[in-house]
Amino acid sequence: MSDYLKETTLGTKSIFKGRIIDVEIQDVRLPDGKESKREIVHHPGAVAVIAFTSDGKLILVKQYRKALEKAIAEIPAGKLEKGEDPLECAKRELEEETGVVAGSWSKLHSFYTSPGFANEIVYIYLAEGLSHGIESTDEDEFVERIDVTMEEAEEMIASGEIHDAKTIYAIQYWKLENLKASEEQK
Amino acid sequence: MSDYLKETTLGTKSIFKGRIIDVEIQDVRLPDGKESKREIVHHPGAVAVIAFTSDGKLILVKQYRKALEKAIAEIPAGKLEKGEDPLECAKRELEEETGVVAGSWSKLHSFYTSPGFANEIVYIYLAEGLSHGIESTDEDEFVERIDVTMEEAEEMIASGEIHDAKTIYAIQYWKLENLKASEEQK
Repeated sequence: MSDYLKETTLGTKSIFKGRIIDVEIQDVRLPDGKESKREIVHHPGAVAVIAFTSDGKLILVKQYRKALEKAIAEIPAGKLEKGEDPLECAKRELEEETGVVAGSWSKLHSFYTSPGFANEIVYIYLAEGLSHGIESTDEDEFVERIDVTMEEAEEMIASGEIHDAKTIYAIQYWKLENLKASEEQK
Repeated sequence: MSDYLKETTLGTKSIFKGRIIDVEIQDVRLPDGKESKREIVHHPGAVAVIAFTSDGKLILVKQYRKALEKAIAEIPAGKLEKGEDPLECAKRELEEETGVVAGSWSKLHSFYTSPGFANEIVYIYLAEGLSHGIESTDEDEFVERIDVTMEEAEEMIASGEIHDAKTIYAIQYWKLENLKASEEQK
């Protein structure tokens, strides 16, 4: 689709190869023939998991985010290892971060988080039929599990304690499911 | 909140200062006293606008995203200029990208797109009471406006033509509003 919008790469300069991200500058030809530069961040991609407790709370993990210089509460998530299947990653991260395993998994959506400069994609799964696994937090990762009601989640959005795209997506998903369920009961 | 999760900065090394993003590596002290490194991308932040036509379609703009090497359709959006008020930015971007101006504006949410490595925040506005403005596309920006029904939006999610966090958020918002409206009619 939309080939007339395409930007062609004229050259690429590697700026940084990190543990998690790579950064490069691309010289590009724009659709009108002019040239420009694009700053691009390569990221391995990530998964995130929507999971509810048996009493209907959403499972979140609180974690310090150095880029934001604050701790926020997010749905369980983690980066893909090289070549890792997103579903396997989701299972691993849910157990590592929350201590639970799920009996059934379904993929809800995937989305790019910041298409203007980064190729990070997040695969979102719904995990159902939860039971206790073997908790084993990642080294280098300090997280605290909190289970919240919808009312608590709304308060945390208002206060900025919930403040990232995937978690706000998850809460919208939750509201939609609740509304659909109340429709069906009528 | 959660001071026991805090990571303390021990040192910062600037890697790159670009036109849009800055990249740095931080040496940090973890909550258990160990040291680690964080790769951080600084971004000026952005706005995005949910706007519906008078016949109830969602306004999208198709645009080539070099980081993804494909064109996707997104809700109108753009980066904040230095010191710019997000609402003013939203008004500017909506008119530049779609040729419309709005009579009323409300802020719906803000969210960090990639808290694991970037401080990019997106402010989401609802624009209502649309009328024609003076279209004036940004230099360096090639966008095509398309107005879509909910059914078309769903097909575009399935095909990957809609594939970013803020636009999938917008479509969830749309579904929620539709469900609420149909509830109220009962």
